[in-house]
Amino acid sequence: MVWPRLPAALVPSARSERPRMEATLYICQTCRMGAPVPDDGIVPGERLLSAIQAEALPQGIRIEPVACLSACSKGCAVALGRPGSWTYVQGGITPEDAAEVLTMARQYAESAEGVVPWRERSALFRKNTIARIPPFALTKDTL
Amino acid sequence: MVWPRLPAALVPSARSERPRMEATLYICQTCRMGAPVPDDGIVPGERLLSAIQAEALPQGIRIEPVACLSACSKGCAVALGRPGSWTYVQGGITPEDAAEVLTMARQYAESAEGVVPWRERSALFRKNTIARIPPFALTKDTL
Repeated sequence: MVWPRLPAALVPSARSERPRMEATLYICQTCRMGAPVPDDGIVPGERLLSAIQAEALPQGIRIEPVACLSACSKGCAVALGRPGSWTYVQGGITPEDAAEVLTMARQYAESAEGVVPWRERSALFRKNTIARIPPFALTKDTL
Repeated sequence: MVWPRLPAALVPSARSERPRMEATLYICQTCRMGAPVPDDGIVPGERLLSAIQAEALPQGIRIEPVACLSACSKGCAVALGRPGSWTYVQGGITPEDAAEVLTMARQYAESAEGVVPWRERSALFRKNTIARIPPFALTKDTL
């Protein structure tokens, strides 16, 4: 079988010439933080999403609400991803962290491959990483 | 700025016609499972990698050793990813789970969008999910 050949812009070896694609900030909007649904019916994940949407969105980022990031024991959770970059999943986020989440997202969007230098990361960024996943190796060998 | 247009094969709306790309099984080969480096210098992550490499590799899967998946508190960790599919990160994996990890990887590779039906997942698969991340929304709106 012949795999479709990706545009050079998406192949890591052509990274330096690649136009930078938008980063996605995934927000788990169903997170209950391990607690029963509050009386008002608005779960923490929904509150987190609203709090983030109320802030100014930095350039190069789009928000994507997700029904479940399966990080329930470490909620609320968000993830940052972009084709050709590392994906970061962050847990233990509260609605009060909205502004800091967007700072983290801006740093991610500005980074070359999704890896923000350690010294530039906030405590929230450093301590709350649940996992990170490498970019897909979209090279000639895998296509 | 004009973003490069992806081949239809990578756009989710054309999913049904898409040739299925290879799934990647990422293995965190530096994991120490929170313990000091053993006397023989071979950390659990390295043992897990070797144990998996000693098994027959199911079709449609490639193995990619990773220096760190940043899931240290839930090691050993592996991840399953494929362009256009959900990515799953699994923790609490031991070298003894090698065969079961490959069963999980085979089920993942056979699934349409990376989501294996719950009833078909082993206990290891069900209980050890650290996080999952949606496929990148590579649509006209984001390109």
